[in-house]
Amino acid sequence: MLKVALVQQNCSADVAANQAESERQLRRAAAAGAQLVVLQELHSGLYFCQTEDTGQFDLAEPLDGPSRQRFEALARELDLVLVISLFEKRATGLYHNTALVMDADRGCAGFYRKMHIPDDPGFYEKFYFTPGDGDRELNGFRPIQTRVGRLGVLVCWDQWYPEAARLMALAGAELLIYPTAIGWNPADDEAEKQRQLGAWQIVQRGHAVANGLPVIVANRTGTELSPDGGTIDFWGHSFAAGPQGEILAQAPADEPALLVVDIDLQRSEDVRRIWPFLRDRRVDAYGNIVKRYID
Amino acid sequence: MLKVALVQQNCSADVAANQAESERQLRRAAAAGAQLVVLQELHSGLYFCQTEDTGQFDLAEPLDGPSRQRFEALARELDLVLVISLFEKRATGLYHNTALVMDADRGCAGFYRKMHIPDDPGFYEKFYFTPGDGDRELNGFRPIQTRVGRLGVLVCWDQWYPEAARLMALAGAELLIYPTAIGWNPADDEAEKQRQLGAWQIVQRGHAVANGLPVIVANRTGTELSPDGGTIDFWGHSFAAGPQGEILAQAPADEPALLVVDIDLQRSEDVRRIWPFLRDRRVDAYGNIVKRYID
Repeated sequence: MLKVALVQQNCSADVAANQAESERQLRRAAAAGAQLVVLQELHSGLYFCQTEDTGQFDLAEPLDGPSRQRFEALARELDLVLVISLFEKRATGLYHNTALVMDADRGCAGFYRKMHIPDDPGFYEKFYFTPGDGDRELNGFRPIQTRVGRLGVLVCWDQWYPEAARLMALAGAELLIYPTAIGWNPADDEAEKQRQLGAWQIVQRGHAVANGLPVIVANRTGTELSPDGGTIDFWGHSFAAGPQGEILAQAPADEPALLVVDIDLQRSEDVRRIWPFLRDRRVDAYGNIVKRYID
Repeated sequence: MLKVALVQQNCSADVAANQAESERQLRRAAAAGAQLVVLQELHSGLYFCQTEDTGQFDLAEPLDGPSRQRFEALARELDLVLVISLFEKRATGLYHNTALVMDADRGCAGFYRKMHIPDDPGFYEKFYFTPGDGDRELNGFRPIQTRVGRLGVLVCWDQWYPEAARLMALAGAELLIYPTAIGWNPADDEAEKQRQLGAWQIVQRGHAVANGLPVIVANRTGTELSPDGGTIDFWGHSFAAGPQGEILAQAPADEPALLVVDIDLQRSEDVRRIWPFLRDRRVDAYGNIVKRYID
């Protein structure tokens, strides 16, 4: 039984305040016995991708920058495994949306650079983030080994891609983890908002089912305004699901939350015995998956 | 707007009675204005895979056998597109679990041989059914063109595989369709039964979301006893979902049903514009999908 905590925050432009709040929640999670804590995507600041602004590159930091140092020390002090997210400066003019995993006293156990990058109104991520390298030896869809298991860490837009979840599962991931920043456009009507939220949960619970793995999703909450007048209502609903896609815990839409949930890793063993999907994959017939389209 | 009907039946060993009931529902569906009707998996008889019995091969018929003739004539008479399912004898000692599509006055438009074959207690399908050929030119994951659109017809166990849905979508499917025979083991407790039913719906609704396509699932209902004392309570819950995974219509667990549902095919166009998942697939990094496991 693994005790997992998910931190759902609202953020401001004050990085120190955001990180202090993350730290406060980490300490609460540790006090509650959490062994693994997942923070949301880009938790140190506002979601700055609502506009394309070269000035925002000032927010980026190297892989071994201040975020890593702070949270690595906290994971060590609190003796837990921690998934954080940051805006990575890899080189001048080369940036990624990157998750890092801190493995208690072992320090940083690995990182994952977001592979699928969205770009739609209010989410101009292709301007900021280079997609993660496809070369599996560098990173790609490679689980990160920690003392609580092999973590299949993916990020936000990756959550819509069954291929990403499957590749993590095939590489031995024991948990799928998605730091996220997704929300509503206030101009959409209520029915559309509910369909979008539903779709977002369903597709990820579907990955749990298809791969017989628990899924952990930490999303942002709160309303953020952009300089050009745009608004995103981040929809919260951070959740954990078991390997049959069943919801184990879920946060509300519009307030910060610390979810602490027990995940029975033995369930994956049991579920994959009754539903041995990996046994029957038609690997002889999947070759066209690497095509953009079959035309 | 496409009017679709799903037929959820309980079956007996009396093939003539089962087919007469299917015909009655088809006539009701046509009278209600349905343009596309989907029957459940192996709708002409009992689900005979609860045991391994060579005598059951007597139930098989060739692709152009009596089932095709009867339902092809009905589709022509009722002027609708019809998806049927049969136990196909392809050659002596070579059998498939096959769906056929009848395209109104055009007759049989194509067929699909189930690619993923289950085998677990009470569902001994590997004994009866050879998996469909992987060669895409023969069949594999190839949509079937009809006057109501390109149908991505898959069968039951295929529904657990995101690869199958994706390949159909990449090949231009406009609807995903799953004739199904799935149910509960009465020995499972109620919580497990609900998780299984939930998982089954979630994974298929997840395919709808990931591919921006409607999904149509016709499942069997009723309790069937096997000669060795086994029992399956087929769980019904035939359903249709839209391209955000939203449930459009759903049948009950334990009674026959004819669901008639309007599906707005324009929604796929709209949803794929706001969520352009196909645009961002990392086809450069998916090569390992054709591996059994990455070890």
